[in-house]
Amino acid sequence: MLNYDNGSKSNKNWIIKETCFDQNVLGKMEAISYLGNGYMGVRSSTEESYSEERRGMFVSGTFNKFDENEVTELPNMPDFIRMEISIDGEKLDLSRQEIRTYERTLNLKTGLLNRKVNIITKNNKAVALEFKRFVSLEDLHLIGQEITIESDCELEIRIKSGINNQITNSGVQHFSEGKKRLYEDTIMQALFKTTQSKIDVICTTAHSVVCTSEVSSLICMERRKIYMDYQIQLGNNDKLKVTKLSKIYTSRDREFDCFSLDQLRDVAKNSVKRDLFLGFDELFDVSEKKWKRIWDERSIDVDSNNDFDQLAIRFAIYHLTVMAPAHDNRMNIGAKALSGEGYKGHTFWDTEMFLLPSFVWHAPKVARSLLEYRYNCLDGSRRKAQEYGYEGAMIPWESAWITDGEVTPKFGAADVVTGKELPVLTGFKEIHITSDIAYAVWNYYMSTDDQDFMERFGYELTFETAEFWQSRLEWNASNQQYEITDVIGPDEYSEIVSNNAFTNYMAHFSVDLAITYFEEISKNRIEVFDKLNNKLNLKDKYKRWTDKLSKIYLPEVNENNILPQDDTYLSLPTIDITKYKESENVAEIIKDYNMEQLSSLQVSKQADVLVLFYIRESLFDKNVKKANFYYYEDKCLHDSSLSLSTHSVLASDLDERDLAYKLFEQACNIDLGPSPHRSDSGIHAASLGGMWQCAINGFLGVRRISNRLRIEPKLPENWNEITTKLYFRGEQLRVTANKEKLIIQNVSGSKEVEIIHKDKVYKVLENVSIELNSL
Amino acid sequence: MLNYDNGSKSNKNWIIKETCFDQNVLGKMEAISYLGNGYMGVRSSTEESYSEERRGMFVSGTFNKFDENEVTELPNMPDFIRMEISIDGEKLDLSRQEIRTYERTLNLKTGLLNRKVNIITKNNKAVALEFKRFVSLEDLHLIGQEITIESDCELEIRIKSGINNQITNSGVQHFSEGKKRLYEDTIMQALFKTTQSKIDVICTTAHSVVCTSEVSSLICMERRKIYMDYQIQLGNNDKLKVTKLSKIYTSRDREFDCFSLDQLRDVAKNSVKRDLFLGFDELFDVSEKKWKRIWDERSIDVDSNNDFDQLAIRFAIYHLTVMAPAHDNRMNIGAKALSGEGYKGHTFWDTEMFLLPSFVWHAPKVARSLLEYRYNCLDGSRRKAQEYGYEGAMIPWESAWITDGEVTPKFGAADVVTGKELPVLTGFKEIHITSDIAYAVWNYYMSTDDQDFMERFGYELTFETAEFWQSRLEWNASNQQYEITDVIGPDEYSEIVSNNAFTNYMAHFSVDLAITYFEEISKNRIEVFDKLNNKLNLKDKYKRWTDKLSKIYLPEVNENNILPQDDTYLSLPTIDITKYKESENVAEIIKDYNMEQLSSLQVSKQADVLVLFYIRESLFDKNVKKANFYYYEDKCLHDSSLSLSTHSVLASDLDERDLAYKLFEQACNIDLGPSPHRSDSGIHAASLGGMWQCAINGFLGVRRISNRLRIEPKLPENWNEITTKLYFRGEQLRVTANKEKLIIQNVSGSKEVEIIHKDKVYKVLENVSIELNSL
Repeated sequence: MLNYDNGSKSNKNWIIKETCFDQNVLGKMEAISYLGNGYMGVRSSTEESYSEERRGMFVSGTFNKFDENEVTELPNMPDFIRMEISIDGEKLDLSRQEIRTYERTLNLKTGLLNRKVNIITKNNKAVALEFKRFVSLEDLHLIGQEITIESDCELEIRIKSGINNQITNSGVQHFSEGKKRLYEDTIMQALFKTTQSKIDVICTTAHSVVCTSEVSSLICMERRKIYMDYQIQLGNNDKLKVTKLSKIYTSRDREFDCFSLDQLRDVAKNSVKRDLFLGFDELFDVSEKKWKRIWDERSIDVDSNNDFDQLAIRFAIYHLTVMAPAHDNRMNIGAKALSGEGYKGHTFWDTEMFLLPSFVWHAPKVARSLLEYRYNCLDGSRRKAQEYGYEGAMIPWESAWITDGEVTPKFGAADVVTGKELPVLTGFKEIHITSDIAYAVWNYYMSTDDQDFMERFGYELTFETAEFWQSRLEWNASNQQYEITDVIGPDEYSEIVSNNAFTNYMAHFSVDLAITYFEEISKNRIEVFDKLNNKLNLKDKYKRWTDKLSKIYLPEVNENNILPQDDTYLSLPTIDITKYKESENVAEIIKDYNMEQLSSLQVSKQADVLVLFYIRESLFDKNVKKANFYYYEDKCLHDSSLSLSTHSVLASDLDERDLAYKLFEQACNIDLGPSPHRSDSGIHAASLGGMWQCAINGFLGVRRISNRLRIEPKLPENWNEITTKLYFRGEQLRVTANKEKLIIQNVSGSKEVEIIHKDKVYKVLENVSIELNSL
Repeated sequence: MLNYDNGSKSNKNWIIKETCFDQNVLGKMEAISYLGNGYMGVRSSTEESYSEERRGMFVSGTFNKFDENEVTELPNMPDFIRMEISIDGEKLDLSRQEIRTYERTLNLKTGLLNRKVNIITKNNKAVALEFKRFVSLEDLHLIGQEITIESDCELEIRIKSGINNQITNSGVQHFSEGKKRLYEDTIMQALFKTTQSKIDVICTTAHSVVCTSEVSSLICMERRKIYMDYQIQLGNNDKLKVTKLSKIYTSRDREFDCFSLDQLRDVAKNSVKRDLFLGFDELFDVSEKKWKRIWDERSIDVDSNNDFDQLAIRFAIYHLTVMAPAHDNRMNIGAKALSGEGYKGHTFWDTEMFLLPSFVWHAPKVARSLLEYRYNCLDGSRRKAQEYGYEGAMIPWESAWITDGEVTPKFGAADVVTGKELPVLTGFKEIHITSDIAYAVWNYYMSTDDQDFMERFGYELTFETAEFWQSRLEWNASNQQYEITDVIGPDEYSEIVSNNAFTNYMAHFSVDLAITYFEEISKNRIEVFDKLNNKLNLKDKYKRWTDKLSKIYLPEVNENNILPQDDTYLSLPTIDITKYKESENVAEIIKDYNMEQLSSLQVSKQADVLVLFYIRESLFDKNVKKANFYYYEDKCLHDSSLSLSTHSVLASDLDERDLAYKLFEQACNIDLGPSPHRSDSGIHAASLGGMWQCAINGFLGVRRISNRLRIEPKLPENWNEITTKLYFRGEQLRVTANKEKLIIQNVSGSKEVEIIHKDKVYKVLENVSIELNSL
């Protein structure tokens, strides 16, 4: 049974705490409390091994393809964490030993993972163990571990610890084994190379073992393993402290671009040597200081009657921080971030729709890097378009390394009706992602006014995505309009539909945006225009865009104000989905219906039309939104983690504060809730971005309207106050809202920011306080 | 703690029984009680999973090479055995549940693995579980499992069971994943293909679930997995019986040589369907009948005061039976048989020196098939000779698939002095294997008179190995003799020596044998000779053989009657090795000395000179043997499992009965003894063959002298009688020896067999009884 609380006293609402050992939630805890820094993510597996564990470590961008039948994926890296610990010949295994006290905490403020256990061994000795661990936010290559063992009794301790590359991705091995070596009796190094992408991985680790008792050690090598075998006769009341400092470098590291493998090996060896000299505490301090700077920028302080809310939001910000490969614009965020094998480390629209907003507002440089990734992927997107007979850039549904193009797997789960493997159609049908990227570029640009970005990356991305759309549009002669048939919209329980409203509107948006930018730069930024026109032959394209734009079919609301999700959805039968909505398990319905059957029902997996209402809020009026909100919420199972937050933000918009809050809490529970296995294969990155949006875009009511910042707080009843800093068009603002007031302070204070509240514009150069009692 | 006994009453000395659950010996029990039939070996992992398990299944001959840095190995096959079982939501895990009664037995007579456990669940329900399993000796592709669950209480049972190919060889994945499919709501099939050798593997399985309560089932597919998820609401006093019948076929199966993959899929599907109709009991009966026939041929009945002796010998015969791929002469026996990943499924001299004798005497057809394998490997052996600049056939130290040639890995464990990986030199230095094969051919031929074998395979093997030797000999001008320098003899703690006595004598034997055969067939079998002469240009070779034979340096005994193991051994310092000899662990010395240091000491890993005394017994007189036996036994750590049995047989020869018996018991304990991990990576095949030799060649004193059978019983004090059947030159004899008599019955009775006992010749057409009181 899952059991954790959120800290107390000085650390109130900063601590994810597990208060009893439960092997059934090992996988979940590994994922939700994983450590990382955007370069790497290390699942919080215990040092000792359990059959339920899903040990894992991932380094951004190190994609490899096992064979021709598979798609590339982020390999599970060699493991540094595991240690085989035995006391008096008895293997440390908390599922078998008597546990006197137990707590495991992840401190979100500092990134420290700490586990304290008091056990009674089979021969009746009380032993206290403490395990500390961090992944440095400052030195991206460093993992620090410290283990302390104490007892009143004499202990015969044995620890085997080193590097283990018997690790796989669910049975798939991505590495060839290279040389192993012990240097200077202390530093172990093992080399590996990805089998297809030929990325060198240099694993280096060393221990310091401190106690006053006798320690013997032996170097051991096995297949894909190098480790030290320590034997310690610990005297009574002596204390054993083992520090393990591990570093990982790869030939994909941009900072070592021109290094040979031998040079990189030396870098690794020397840095471990230096780290060993500095020690655990000093290395941790440096990382903690970096965390302090992060929290200073990205905090959302919530005064809620429910402590969990603050914890959950910090949990989201922690994860948004450790998941983002801000160091390298050839990398992006996977659907499970760096926390597990799920979705193979691939990037989806999740980044642009669910994660990017948090970075745009809190860390615009990270947002830019993530968008630059899409630019760096353009060749693959153009190749995908060509393969399908289209023009421009057709953004892959799933992306991995920048040159990979589309990497969606071909088959998924079992079809419960036919007994065959279900083909995965998203890779060629779920095309809305192409406009999602254009939207994100626009959104970033409008929020940051980052002209440099636009000139180098943004315009080209926009033009190329628009060009895809104009080629993808299908002329319907009888209706005299351009339609888009045979697609999957955001709702993946409606497989293969025509004129999905979200898809059509966003295609229109995309082409329209390209036209706007064309006109803007061809008039006002001639140099930029000429360069791009030379490269992309823009003038011809512009003609096609303008020819087609007004003829794109944009579905309209029906007599009940309902915007049809697609051509057929509203005509399909409905079923009673209460059983599935109330189920503790996700996606229970696919045990009863196969995809073909589901697609013939008014049952939605996730927000679809409602995403459109959210991101293009000025398209429809409040009454339409309201009608659609209830209509679709009733039919939506939220079987995707990309769903609840959209519904929550919209509920806030509609002033349905209780419902908005309820949906927010449900979203928080996707990873933090009691479900023991839902996070096993990794955290739900998009959902964490969604939680962020619930708070900022929902409850605080932050939206960008053109180049103004709208703030319309809709605090839930439980919330007394929320404070955060926001970047907007180069300025940093500090925003506080409580039930009475909205206070905006321009922290940068270099230029005026225009704020809209209740249709009134406030120009903020220093600060402004707005009374909310009119609510 | 390991704890097993050997059955009682009707099954006395037939049962390997584990009487308490101990996760620390899971790996050992998996290996020593593995099930098999020569086609496949299935480690006896439990249905439920433990972190200590080393789950594995191997199919003979399906070698695959993971990448260019590795050598080919026998892949760990997709797993059929594992089932995830939970009761009332509580996972079955005997390390965590209260166990009321427990026993796990392997019945050596029938090949049935049976586990009976009574547990108390966390919510206090008593549940009885029984697990039966067999691998059919009749249908080589079939694994049968039957699980029974009973309780007085109502139980909510969940079982997930199917095919899992997340299995690896210590992290190395050898299979690409193919199609998965459920047929007819019952039959699961999953296809895999080895990555480099491109062998198709067709895995098919189906369940029958029998109880009177409600059963729901769901087909599930995950990466490399297909399984059924059964949920059973078991009424109180209802009984659940789940039968699982699994079959494995591969495109390497000779019986399906011309089948397409689709045809093979159908064969698999239809055979599972038929098996499901027949049911567990009937399928098991058929296999049991085959076992009965095996035991009728291969039994060694021992009346010993120590029951363990009979059990151990049956244990050896069981394993000798399940390890031998008698169905296909393109396959041989690996050093760990089909019981684990150790030594990668590779074949060593272990087959010819340690295993083959048991087959020559008990199952000559199997012996012939194993030798035919060496013939089928000739191209690879010729290639190896060429690579090193020699002629003829240089037998690989490690062999895998027939075309692979040498497959010894390049690096092994850590060098404790330098911190580097130890290079493995056996692949190009341990060349005595080439004469070991020639010796085995000769031994087989003399024991069977199988002229057909010789004409088709044996002569060519002999000529080609002799040709290697004549090219390998090095002329020492100052000594005017041919020497053999820079080799490893049988004793692998003496790395790189010159004129290893075993090597030189056996090279001489090999060349001498070729000369003898040349002269024999060129005179008496002209047709055979002409054919071989055309192919091999024998006449030229013969000249070289005869030129060199008499000049081969054959070391002689020194003034103390000691035959020097090599040029330097006797001059090296000795050290006190008592500590290592008495250690419970094997190879403790390599924690203190590296190979270079060990090679500079009079310390032996294993029998070396003594192997020569055993297999070429007429070369030296008894006094020499005696002197050398004690000299080398004192210096031998028996750190190889190939050592104790040779010393035991020699001790019997020397009438050192107590010592012979002690060494035999030690040999039995290599796999059956208390060491918890020594068999983890597989049983010690050669040692099992060695145990057989201790009994037959040692205690019963059986030896072939020219074409006569010598029997000189040396029963240990504990043994009252031994009876076995032996094949000799086409006749089957039944031999019984006790302290008083030696009784030999010619079971076939078709022609006389000449027996030598105490230098007297007995011609046995029916039977003879010889008084032993002269002893």
